[in-house]
Amino acid sequence: MAEYRIGVDVGGTTVKAGIVDSNNQIVARATVPTQPELGPDKAAENIALAAKNAAQNAGLPLDGFLSAGFGLPGLMAVQDGILIHGGNIGMTDYPIRAKLEDFLGIPVSIGNDADCAAIGETVAGAASQYRHVLFLTLGTGLGGSMIIDRKPLLGHGGLSGEFGHMIMHEGGEHCTCGMDGCFEAYASVTALIRQANRAIQEHPESLMSEYVRTAGPINGKAIFDCADRGDATALAVIDRYAEYVGVGTGSLVSIFRPDAVVFGGAVSVQTERLILPARKYAEKYAFASHVLALPPFLSASLGNDAGIIGAAYLEN
Amino acid sequence: MAEYRIGVDVGGTTVKAGIVDSNNQIVARATVPTQPELGPDKAAENIALAAKNAAQNAGLPLDGFLSAGFGLPGLMAVQDGILIHGGNIGMTDYPIRAKLEDFLGIPVSIGNDADCAAIGETVAGAASQYRHVLFLTLGTGLGGSMIIDRKPLLGHGGLSGEFGHMIMHEGGEHCTCGMDGCFEAYASVTALIRQANRAIQEHPESLMSEYVRTAGPINGKAIFDCADRGDATALAVIDRYAEYVGVGTGSLVSIFRPDAVVFGGAVSVQTERLILPARKYAEKYAFASHVLALPPFLSASLGNDAGIIGAAYLEN
Repeated sequence: MAEYRIGVDVGGTTVKAGIVDSNNQIVARATVPTQPELGPDKAAENIALAAKNAAQNAGLPLDGFLSAGFGLPGLMAVQDGILIHGGNIGMTDYPIRAKLEDFLGIPVSIGNDADCAAIGETVAGAASQYRHVLFLTLGTGLGGSMIIDRKPLLGHGGLSGEFGHMIMHEGGEHCTCGMDGCFEAYASVTALIRQANRAIQEHPESLMSEYVRTAGPINGKAIFDCADRGDATALAVIDRYAEYVGVGTGSLVSIFRPDAVVFGGAVSVQTERLILPARKYAEKYAFASHVLALPPFLSASLGNDAGIIGAAYLEN
Repeated sequence: MAEYRIGVDVGGTTVKAGIVDSNNQIVARATVPTQPELGPDKAAENIALAAKNAAQNAGLPLDGFLSAGFGLPGLMAVQDGILIHGGNIGMTDYPIRAKLEDFLGIPVSIGNDADCAAIGETVAGAASQYRHVLFLTLGTGLGGSMIIDRKPLLGHGGLSGEFGHMIMHEGGEHCTCGMDGCFEAYASVTALIRQANRAIQEHPESLMSEYVRTAGPINGKAIFDCADRGDATALAVIDRYAEYVGVGTGSLVSIFRPDAVVFGGAVSVQTERLILPARKYAEKYAFASHVLALPPFLSASLGNDAGIIGAAYLEN
């Protein structure tokens, strides 16, 4: 049994559990609706149920597992097992670890979902040959995790890693967090879309503008599609966006000097248009690039499974 | 003998060695001129000599020590024992650890001097009750170190920790490193002096302006002295400088979420005028300050001895 681990990726809508073997393959899965609207105890029961069902689907007795790991959204005190603020799953100051241990009868580890994705990519994905890995997710927000010797940097109460809220333009673009000039306000996909909408206003002749007139609001994929069709406006928006990604990532390279940087989120598949240009720009914004080669910039390779595999490796 | 350690703080002019007891007191010292102008081998010999002399001054045989630790300026590959670029002590791609071990006949550990000061403050100084400590030195440049569970964050090849070169104003103030908008270009003492000189130009009626006319170029201490005498121009310069310190430190709090932040450098003694206002500003620039209390901002307490005590605790 020691060769199997349980990893659970908890989202606001769905709980996805997997049984991970010693080759980091997911040999069985289970999915359960989270149902946060039914209250935190019911949501916790659903989260535990996903783990139970996955074990059952693998034909393995739950009490044979040494522990189960859960990747959760929101702010948590990992050492205390408390979800301080998990808005998406309706929990506030909730003793999630103790509740899950009650339901399952085996020790439980918890972690931040971004940390789990980063651990997954480091254990079994794009960064499996590296020890110190900076993981950045470009999505609605800009999340991240720093893996040091295969463990996430936790900081005080497990609250570190708010890379998206590093100030890169004091007094600049307003951020959803309430501050101004955050990295996230320039380099999330939400920011890319805002930048594209401004360009669309200025360039009614652009393909992106035509897209909005005919197909509806612009989105990340449509911006890259327009660029693929040669739209100069889309190309310019993406180029500037790549520079924003490069500024913040360059700073994080100066701070952490990781062995590799891994990008997650839907736009991270845009290697030629985004990831490599962002690295070129990061050379301009990382300390001493004339003597210190930048680490490789990689796209995450495990997709949604990273969270399950990473959760399976949590230890706390 | 296990209760004694050798710590050596290597500067461009002077090598300072100390024998540190189990209560973190320096029970014997020795100082030797570095003499980098005589070449790297002679400088290495001088560095080793300081350690030897300190042991002799303590009346302890050198070969009774388990190891000796050396804090060095510049860029180094800690794991390999190589000083890649140590301009101040005239060494480039120099195998400093092997050379020191040859001279001393005992195992040697090396580390960055900023890391050593941070370890010293964490082991025996201002941050001795904290595990995760962000250490920032406000001086000619802006150096720093992040201590995690009492060990410095090293990153790839020991090259992490260039906090001063986080970009806080893309396209902003030029930095000595060649980039624009670095934290250091706003928050080093060099930057404070530049900010003061601009204000002096605009305010010939200010006490700072009078100081320059009568006493010569302004310096960090003179700026604070003018503020103490009620000079509105100096007070405004320091207030804005405290905000710059707060912007970058706030970002680093979002990134690392340390248990405490310790400031070193001569201006760090300005608790009321600088450190506490910087913390107040950092609340505005750190993620979710409305729910997450900022860590305490402390002034370093060991002065120059931090580097010796921290070096004594190096292990690599």
